[in-house]
Amino acid sequence: MDTLDDAPTPALVLDRLRLTANAGRMRERARSAQVGLRPHLKTLKSIDAARLALDPHHGGIAAATLNEAAYFAAHGIADIQLAVCLPPAKFPRVAELLHSAPRLSFFVDSIEAAAAAAAFARQSGAALRAWIEIDSGGRRTGVAPTDPALPAIARALGDAVRLEGVATHAGQSYADLPVAAIADAAAYLRAAGFEVPGVSAGSTPTTTHARSAAGLTEWRAGVYLAGDLFQVAIRSQALQDVALSVLATVISHHRGRGQLVVDAGGLALSKDRSTAGMPGRDGGYGLLADLDGQPFAPALHVTEVHQEHGVVHGVDAAAFERLPLGARVRIMPNHACMTAAMYDEYLVVDGDRTIMARWPRTNGWA
Amino acid sequence: MDTLDDAPTPALVLDRLRLTANAGRMRERARSAQVGLRPHLKTLKSIDAARLALDPHHGGIAAATLNEAAYFAAHGIADIQLAVCLPPAKFPRVAELLHSAPRLSFFVDSIEAAAAAAAFARQSGAALRAWIEIDSGGRRTGVAPTDPALPAIARALGDAVRLEGVATHAGQSYADLPVAAIADAAAYLRAAGFEVPGVSAGSTPTTTHARSAAGLTEWRAGVYLAGDLFQVAIRSQALQDVALSVLATVISHHRGRGQLVVDAGGLALSKDRSTAGMPGRDGGYGLLADLDGQPFAPALHVTEVHQEHGVVHGVDAAAFERLPLGARVRIMPNHACMTAAMYDEYLVVDGDRTIMARWPRTNGWA
Repeated sequence: MDTLDDAPTPALVLDRLRLTANAGRMRERARSAQVGLRPHLKTLKSIDAARLALDPHHGGIAAATLNEAAYFAAHGIADIQLAVCLPPAKFPRVAELLHSAPRLSFFVDSIEAAAAAAAFARQSGAALRAWIEIDSGGRRTGVAPTDPALPAIARALGDAVRLEGVATHAGQSYADLPVAAIADAAAYLRAAGFEVPGVSAGSTPTTTHARSAAGLTEWRAGVYLAGDLFQVAIRSQALQDVALSVLATVISHHRGRGQLVVDAGGLALSKDRSTAGMPGRDGGYGLLADLDGQPFAPALHVTEVHQEHGVVHGVDAAAFERLPLGARVRIMPNHACMTAAMYDEYLVVDGDRTIMARWPRTNGWA
Repeated sequence: MDTLDDAPTPALVLDRLRLTANAGRMRERARSAQVGLRPHLKTLKSIDAARLALDPHHGGIAAATLNEAAYFAAHGIADIQLAVCLPPAKFPRVAELLHSAPRLSFFVDSIEAAAAAAAFARQSGAALRAWIEIDSGGRRTGVAPTDPALPAIARALGDAVRLEGVATHAGQSYADLPVAAIADAAAYLRAAGFEVPGVSAGSTPTTTHARSAAGLTEWRAGVYLAGDLFQVAIRSQALQDVALSVLATVISHHRGRGQLVVDAGGLALSKDRSTAGMPGRDGGYGLLADLDGQPFAPALHVTEVHQEHGVVHGVDAAAFERLPLGARVRIMPNHACMTAAMYDEYLVVDGDRTIMARWPRTNGWA
C-alpha cells in the first residue's frame, strides 16, 4: 500500500475519518435544530466527499460554479443549488443541465435578472428554478430583506420560473442577524402573497454559532467538511477536526535564521491570509503537522510564501533535528477552499499515513 | 470566429501582440547587455508562449516544478533549469527526464543536498547537472556569496554531478546588489579552483532595473511575458504591456453603494495583494478593462474578493450605464503567476476581442 512517505510533493491529503466525523456532526446538529442540511461542495468538489456529506432528510447540495453543477449532475445529484447570481448568458447551460439535475436552481438579486430568466424560460421552455438572494449584512450580492424590490423580483419571475425561496450567504458572521434577516425576507414575501417553500441560510459559522434555526428550512455550509485554521480561529471547529492538509517536503535549512523552506508555496497553499491580524490565532499560510496529522509542538507555521517556496520561521534546534532535508510534513491550510483549488485529486487517508484511495476533484468554470 | 463576447466566464485571455512585444523587447535588452536570456515559464506554462519567448542565442528556459520540466521536455526543450532546490526523493524523476531534456538542471544550496545528488548520480549513472543557489538578499533559499559552504558544496558535487554554475533569485529587488552578490560568488568559487560556466540571475525587475549585467552569463525572468499590476507599480513595465487578463461578467449591481459584482473572485483572480500599501499604485485584485483591453477611465478595480465573487467599489453612474448586468470586462491581474495558475488554457487574442487560438497550459506538480 502506498503511503505519504512516498507520494510526490506537494499533494493534497484528505483524512476520511475526520471528514466523516465532520459530516456526521453537522448532520446531527441540523437534525436537532430541525433544519435540512445542504452541504456546499465548493470546497471539496468531489462526488466521494458529497456522498459522505449528503443529508438523507434533504438530499441536495450547493455548488458555486456551472462546472461543479455539471460534475455533480453527471454523478446523479438532482437537487443542486447554484448559490450565485447568474448572468443571462449562463441560462442556456442551466437549461441543458436540467436534463440530468431537474432540481438545479440558481440565485437572482434584481428585477432585471428575474425578468431575463423569465423571458428565457418562456422562450426555451426550460423549467428554471430560482432563489431570491437576500443580503443579510455581507454587502456582496442580494437585496435587503425590506427592499421593495423583493416582491417585485418575485413578480418578475412570474409563472415562468419557479420561486424556490429566499437564500442568504452569511459569510463569516457569528451573529443571529443573518437568520433574522432571511426570516424577515420570507415573511415579507409571504405577506405579499408569494409561496416561499425554501428559506436557505449559509456558511459554517452560521450553523455552529447561531442560537436558533427558527424560520429556516435549510442550512448551507461547506468548509466544515474540510476544516481549516480560519474555522478553528473563529471557533467553528477544533484543530483536530481539520481533515485537509498539504503534503510537502523540506528543501532547505538556514539554521542561522531559524528558518526552513518547504516545496509548498503560494500555489500549493494559496495566498489566503484570512487569519491575519487575529492575535494568538494567526495561522500564517498553514500549520505544520507530522505525516500522521499531529501538529508539532511548539507550533510551526508557514509564515512567508513565494510561488513554489513556503518559508517556516522560528525553527528551533529540536525541530531542525526532526525535520532534516527531505523530511515530509502535512500543512493544515489557512483557508481550505482556496488551498484545495489547485489540486486534481485527494490522497485519502484514514487517520494515519496510508493512502487508502485517490479521489478526483473537479476545478475550473466552463 | 469566436470572440470574447461569447466565451464562458471566467476565462483567461492572452494578448499575443503584447506577449510578442514583451518577448522581443526583453531579448533586445539582453542582447544589448550582452547576456543570454533564459525565459522562466513558471508564469505562462505554455509551449506556445515558450516558443515566442526563447532567445536564439541561448535556447534554454527555466521552470519551477517537475511537472513544468516534464511538459517542456516532452515538447523538445533540452535546456531546462529547474530553478528550485530539490529534495533527494525528486532525483529519480530528474534522471528520467534527462532522457528527453539532456541539459535539465536543478539547484542545490547545501553540502547535504550536493552529497545526496552525487551519491544518486554515482549509483544511478544519471548525468545530473546542478547550480549552486546563492542568496543575494532574498533570505529564502541559497547560500551567502561569502559562505565557506560555497566551495564545500562544489566539492560535494565532485565529478558525479556537473556544476552548471551559480544562480540567484533576485526577487523584487531594484538594486544592483543581486548582480554584485552572484558575481562575488562566482569569483569565490573560481578562486577555489572550480570552473563556473554559468552565472544566472533572475527576475523581471533585475533585468529592467539593474544598471549592468557585468559578470552574468544569463538573465532568468518570466513575468515580463505576461505583465501584471505589480510589475507596472514597480515600473518594470507599462500598463499597456500587460498581456494577461481575466474575462468576467457583471452579475450584480448595487447602485446605492456604488458597487458592482463580477463572476471572477478569489479563485479566478487569486488572492495575491502584492500591490497593497503602494499608494497610488494599489491594483486591488485587478484593474477592469473593456473587451478590447482598454482600461476604463476613471479606473475601476476589484477591491474585494470571495471565492467566486469579485466586488468593484466606486462605480459611478456613467460606469453603471456602461456595465449593465451581463456586461463583460477584462481584468488585468495584480500578480500574473498566481492568477494564471487556475486555468487550463488561454483564449489568445491579437489586440482585440477575436479569439485567434486556444493555447493549453500545464498546472500542478507531479
